[in-house]
Amino acid sequence: MEQFAEFELTKEFRDRFQQALDDRDAAFIYSSLEEVNPADITSLLYEFTSEESKYVLGLLPLQVRSRIINDLDPETRKTFLSIYSVEELTDIINHLDSDDAADILNELPIKSSEEIIAYLDPDLKSQVIDLLRYDSNVAGGLMAKELIRARANWTVVQCVDEIRKQAESVTKFYAVWVVDETDRLLGSVALQKLILTDSKTLVKDIYDEVVSVETYMEDREVAEVMKKYDLESVPVVNVQGQLVGRITIDDVVDVITEQAEEERQLMSGITEDVGEEDSLWRNVRARLPWLLIGIFGGMLSARFMGFFEQELAKVTAIAFFVPLIQATGGNVGIQSSGLVVQSLVDPNYMDEGLWKRLMKVFSVALLNGILLSLIVFASTYIFFNNDRLSVIVSFALFCVVLFSSFVGTVTPILINRLGFNPALASGPFITTTSDLLGLSIYFITVQVLI
Amino acid sequence: MEQFAEFELTKEFRDRFQQALDDRDAAFIYSSLEEVNPADITSLLYEFTSEESKYVLGLLPLQVRSRIINDLDPETRKTFLSIYSVEELTDIINHLDSDDAADILNELPIKSSEEIIAYLDPDLKSQVIDLLRYDSNVAGGLMAKELIRARANWTVVQCVDEIRKQAESVTKFYAVWVVDETDRLLGSVALQKLILTDSKTLVKDIYDEVVSVETYMEDREVAEVMKKYDLESVPVVNVQGQLVGRITIDDVVDVITEQAEEERQLMSGITEDVGEEDSLWRNVRARLPWLLIGIFGGMLSARFMGFFEQELAKVTAIAFFVPLIQATGGNVGIQSSGLVVQSLVDPNYMDEGLWKRLMKVFSVALLNGILLSLIVFASTYIFFNNDRLSVIVSFALFCVVLFSSFVGTVTPILINRLGFNPALASGPFITTTSDLLGLSIYFITVQVLI
Repeated sequence: MEQFAEFELTKEFRDRFQQALDDRDAAFIYSSLEEVNPADITSLLYEFTSEESKYVLGLLPLQVRSRIINDLDPETRKTFLSIYSVEELTDIINHLDSDDAADILNELPIKSSEEIIAYLDPDLKSQVIDLLRYDSNVAGGLMAKELIRARANWTVVQCVDEIRKQAESVTKFYAVWVVDETDRLLGSVALQKLILTDSKTLVKDIYDEVVSVETYMEDREVAEVMKKYDLESVPVVNVQGQLVGRITIDDVVDVITEQAEEERQLMSGITEDVGEEDSLWRNVRARLPWLLIGIFGGMLSARFMGFFEQELAKVTAIAFFVPLIQATGGNVGIQSSGLVVQSLVDPNYMDEGLWKRLMKVFSVALLNGILLSLIVFASTYIFFNNDRLSVIVSFALFCVVLFSSFVGTVTPILINRLGFNPALASGPFITTTSDLLGLSIYFITVQVLI
Repeated sequence: MEQFAEFELTKEFRDRFQQALDDRDAAFIYSSLEEVNPADITSLLYEFTSEESKYVLGLLPLQVRSRIINDLDPETRKTFLSIYSVEELTDIINHLDSDDAADILNELPIKSSEEIIAYLDPDLKSQVIDLLRYDSNVAGGLMAKELIRARANWTVVQCVDEIRKQAESVTKFYAVWVVDETDRLLGSVALQKLILTDSKTLVKDIYDEVVSVETYMEDREVAEVMKKYDLESVPVVNVQGQLVGRITIDDVVDVITEQAEEERQLMSGITEDVGEEDSLWRNVRARLPWLLIGIFGGMLSARFMGFFEQELAKVTAIAFFVPLIQATGGNVGIQSSGLVVQSLVDPNYMDEGLWKRLMKVFSVALLNGILLSLIVFASTYIFFNNDRLSVIVSFALFCVVLFSSFVGTVTPILINRLGFNPALASGPFITTTSDLLGLSIYFITVQVLI
C-alpha cells in the first residue's frame, strides 16, 4: 500500500477491468481495488458508465464509497447520483463531513434532498440544515461544522478527553478552537502544543490568537486571507463573534483553481462552463455569444468602410493595411487589459490611483507606438514605395496603439467597479472594441491625410 | 490581538506613520506595530522606501523581522535585501525554515550567499546546502528539511520525546513521519492519533501508509498530487525511497497561483513576468515581441492583399468584409485553443485520442459555421444588396470557422507535445495565425467565385 501514488491506469488494466465488469466478476474487482487509494478509484470511474460505476462502488465499504462520490466533479456526480435511490443516498451522505454533505444536497433535486435530510443522523442533520442557509460562494457555504471546541477554563487533559469524544466525527484536525462561555472565539491551541504541555495547564494560559473570517465573507477573500496569513485552517465566526465552523486549505485550493479556470474561460470568450467532453449543443451554445458579437462588430466595420468607398476605389492599397491596424489594435488591447486584470486580481497591489496608472500606460504606449510606427513606416515605404500611404498607415498605427492601450486599461477597471469579473474584459470583448476603434482611427486618418 | 484580520491601512494611519518615520519616532512605530500580524506589516512596507522599511524592521524582534522579509515578493525582496550587510542577512536567514532560507540565498548574489552559508548555524547550514542542489521548480526545491522523524520500533512516548526535542526547529507540523532503520519512508502518524493512543503502543502498529513524491517531481505535478489526495503536507523521498523532506500545502498554493498568473500572461501576449509597477522599459520590452509578430503578420497580409489589387479595384466592397473575416477567425481560434488548453491542464482529463477530439471540434465548428454564415448571408444581402458578394462572404466565413477551429485545436496540442506551456497558443499567437489563415481563405474564395 506504500505504492499508493504509483497507481497508473494502463490500457491493459482498463480492458481487463471492463471484462470483469461485463462478467460482474466481483472477486477480481474487489481484489484489484482493495489496495488502491480512493482518489485513484475516482479517476478510474470516469472510464465507465454510471451503472458500471455504481456496481463497482457497491463492492467497496460505505466509507470509501462516500469518499469517492464526494471526489467526483459536481457535473459528473449529478448525473451519477440520479441512478441512486433516496435510501442509498442517505447512507452515503451520512458518511460525509457536513460541508461535503451540504454541497451534494445542494446539487440534488429539492424533493430528494428534503427526503434525505429527514433521514440523516441527528447531529449531521442539524449541521447540514445550518449550512444550507449559506450561498456556496461565501465562507458560510465553504465551512464544515466538524471541529474540536474547548473552553478557556478547561485543562489540557479535559481538552484531550473532548478530542477523544469527537475523534469519530471530526476526521482531520490540527488545532483545538478555544471559546468563552458564550461560544465566542478566543483563539486556538495547536495539537503539537497540546502534546508538549503539562496536562494540568489551563487552556486559557496557552492558547494563541487567531485570524478568523465571518460567515458572509466571499470565497475569494477567504482564499486571500488564508494565503496571506499562511493558514491551514481558519475558524468561521458569525456576527456575534461566535465560532460556527472552520474552513480548511483544501477547500480553498479548489476555490483558487476554479477561479483560474473561470478566468481562462472568460479570456477565451467562452460564456458557459463547458469542456470538450460536453454535448455538441452545449459546446456550440457556449461559443456563439462572442462569435455573434464579433460578427456584429464585423458588419459594423463593413458598413463603416462603406462610407469610404470613394477613397478606397481611388487608392486600393488603403485596404491592404486594414488587417495590420486591426491586429495591432487587438494585441495592444489584450496586453493592456491582461496586465490590469492581473493587478486587480492581486491583493498585494496598492491602488496608485487611476491617474498615475494612466500616465504609466500612456508612456509605455507612447514608446511602443513610436517604435512600431517607425518600423511600419519603413516597411511600407520599402514594399509599396508610396510616401503618403506610409505616413498615413504609420501615423494611424501610432494612434491605434495609444487608444487601444487606453481602452484596454480602462475597460477592466470599469467592469471591476461595476462588480463583474474584470477578466471578462480581456478576451473577445477587448478585441472587438479595439477592432472597431482601430478601423475608425485608420479611416479618419485616411480621410484627413489623403 | 483577536482583531488580527481587521488591520486596515487607512490613509490617516499611513500619513501618521510616514511622519513617525521622518522623525525616526521609534516609540510610535513600535507601539503601533506591536499588535499587528506580521503579514499585515509586510503589506505596509510596500508603501515605504527600502531605507525606511529597514528602519521599521530594525525595531521588531528578529523572529518577526525574518518572517516579514520572507513574506515579501521575490522581486521586492531582492532590491530590499541589497541594503543589508552580510552579517545582518545571516541573522535573518538563521531564523528561517530551511526551504525559505534556500529560496532567499538563491536570490542573492553568489558572493554574498556563499559568505552567509559559511556563517549559518551548523544544522541549517547542512540543510540549506542540501536544498540548494535542486532546481526551484521540482519537489526538492520546494521541500523543507524540518520534520519530525520517528522509527517504526519506537513507542508513542519516544515519539513525543522526539517532538519535544525538535519543537524548537520545526515550527508547524501535523504528523510524524515514520521511517525504517535505513531511513526509508514507511508512513505517518497524525498528531491527533498520537494524542489518543496509549503511550506504550509501538509506532509500527499505528502508522498509516502515505502518498509520497520524489525529489525530481515537477512542482505542478506535486500540486496535482496534493490536490488529488487532499494532503496538507507530503513527504519527499529520494530515489532510494529515503525520507529527505516535506512539502506543505501553502507552498503548493503559491505554485498554483503562479501557474495561473503565468497562463494569464501567456494568454495576454506578455512575454516577461511584468507588472504595471515595473519600470517603463521592462513594460515596453515585455509587450514588444508579440506586437512585432502581429505587425509582421499585418505586413504579410498587406502584401498578400496586394495580389488581389485588381479584384479590389473592381469591387471595392470586398475590402469591407476583411475585418469581419479576420475577427471571426481570431475569435474562433481563441475559443478553440482556450478549451484545449483547459483540458490539457486538467489532470482528470482522459485523452480520447486526437481523432475523436478533432471530430468533435469539427462538428461544433460545422454547426457554428452554418449558423454564423446564414446570419452573415442575410445581413450582407440586406445591407449591400449584392447576392454574389453575400455568397462569397458567407461561404468564406464558413470555411474560416472550420479552419480556425482546427488550427486553434491542433496548435496547443502540438505546443504541449513539444514541451512548452500550451497556454502560449491561446493568445496573440493564435490570433495572428487565424488572421492570416482567414484572409487567405477569403481572397481565395473571392478569386474563385467572383
